[in-house]
Amino acid sequence: MDKVTIIGLGLIGGSLAKSLRAKSIFNHFIGVDSNSDHTSRAVELGLVDEVMELGDAISNSDFVILAVPVNIAETMASDILDKLDKQTLIDVGSTKNGILEAVKNNPKRKQFVATHPMAGTEFSGPDAAIDNLFDDKAAIICDAINSEKERVSQVEEIYKKIGSEVKYMAGEEHDVSAAYVSHISHLSSFALALTVLNKEKNVENITTLASGGFESTVRLAKSNQNTWEAIFSANKENVLEVMDNYIENMILFKHAIKSGNSEVVKTLIRQANEVKKVL
Amino acid sequence: MDKVTIIGLGLIGGSLAKSLRAKSIFNHFIGVDSNSDHTSRAVELGLVDEVMELGDAISNSDFVILAVPVNIAETMASDILDKLDKQTLIDVGSTKNGILEAVKNNPKRKQFVATHPMAGTEFSGPDAAIDNLFDDKAAIICDAINSEKERVSQVEEIYKKIGSEVKYMAGEEHDVSAAYVSHISHLSSFALALTVLNKEKNVENITTLASGGFESTVRLAKSNQNTWEAIFSANKENVLEVMDNYIENMILFKHAIKSGNSEVVKTLIRQANEVKKVL
Repeated sequence: MDKVTIIGLGLIGGSLAKSLRAKSIFNHFIGVDSNSDHTSRAVELGLVDEVMELGDAISNSDFVILAVPVNIAETMASDILDKLDKQTLIDVGSTKNGILEAVKNNPKRKQFVATHPMAGTEFSGPDAAIDNLFDDKAAIICDAINSEKERVSQVEEIYKKIGSEVKYMAGEEHDVSAAYVSHISHLSSFALALTVLNKEKNVENITTLASGGFESTVRLAKSNQNTWEAIFSANKENVLEVMDNYIENMILFKHAIKSGNSEVVKTLIRQANEVKKVL
Repeated sequence: MDKVTIIGLGLIGGSLAKSLRAKSIFNHFIGVDSNSDHTSRAVELGLVDEVMELGDAISNSDFVILAVPVNIAETMASDILDKLDKQTLIDVGSTKNGILEAVKNNPKRKQFVATHPMAGTEFSGPDAAIDNLFDDKAAIICDAINSEKERVSQVEEIYKKIGSEVKYMAGEEHDVSAAYVSHISHLSSFALALTVLNKEKNVENITTLASGGFESTVRLAKSNQNTWEAIFSANKENVLEVMDNYIENMILFKHAIKSGNSEVVKTLIRQANEVKKVL
């Protein structure tokens, strides 16, 4: 294929540009971003070859990637579909119900493929874009049955070429599982950072003690506010359910420690240790 | 120096043996462990040169390292001091109040140096021992004022030689900070594992989605039940305080998401992002 438009030149959009270019999947990269600092930086970094307005970018492309925060993706998706000729549109958002709902009655629905590459870092913006981000990661295609078969195959091929293993899921199943596996991980990390920063005003103590597990567990707390507020909001029902379960487990632990019931504490740790069988 | 006894041949005791041998700080290593699987494995792995009963080991050594879970260390410390001739005893436990209390009236108190190397992995037992574990990590010496000055200097030198940066703290301050920086990290990780494992019975979904932050955040949930139950119990008061603060922060997040107050959610995330300034 020839030309690709990437809408949203942050961590994911920028890293996709790098991987797609490295594998020669497209030979011309057009960038779209409402933030002019991002567009100029993306050109400087060589992530994209040129910057255009949305309409021009789409009409000059063979393939369109929507890589903006999920709340914005939901509002843009149907308008972008309206502007398509023969191009395929994919999104790369961390929640899927909202965007699938937004496009479901669009006459060009079959030109859209909903995807979620399970890759990222705690950094954001064009400067956060890195090589090989999608290598050895899962890429999930959701509700593929509502997309044109050939387009799904093409998207699967693209993800495979940049090193990802493609999995298929229903959008609803994706959002429940993502809340339980990914979104709560971020929330637990944000809460951890807040707790430590509120209490421990001696920054040197934090740095000194950080190698005792804090550093790795708090890493995700550096993640971007716009990206993650949008994800929690878009996946609100599932996120609230998992938060309730999480808080219940923490309270269970607390009561076991408080009552000095060491056997219950050990049992809870042993149950948590079962994660070894999965990862 | 010549001969060292290491009591407790798990992750920390075994890794210390490797680092101390690599830097030729001692030339003969005697192992003591109530678990005969651990002693035979430690000899097989070359962590120690021979295994002895506690009394013999001490009387044949120039230096003694206590590397058992903190609850056991607290019960053993004073008895070990009683058995010392001129040797120095150090412990390496993750909590300090209990052991400092246990030895405070011992006539040989000044031969004891309380330390906490801030290093570890989620694995346990002699097979978990690794090279260079203490390299570039902090090693904390607590209540040094109650130990003989020359012995403190010697212990500082040993930690420096195996690559650690030595810091001094009061035992009480250590235990508060450790609860806030290290112990809660483990608890948040255990609670995360329990939440995900209880809900997501589809193991493939967990594996597929794990790169979305779960894998790194849940790593500590693989940690040993005996080690960590003992730490939570020994540092109960501080741990319960930090758990309450943690649960409050998680509930604050939950209410902000539930009420759809995106500005509060973003503010909480921005406050959590401040951890970037520290780490």
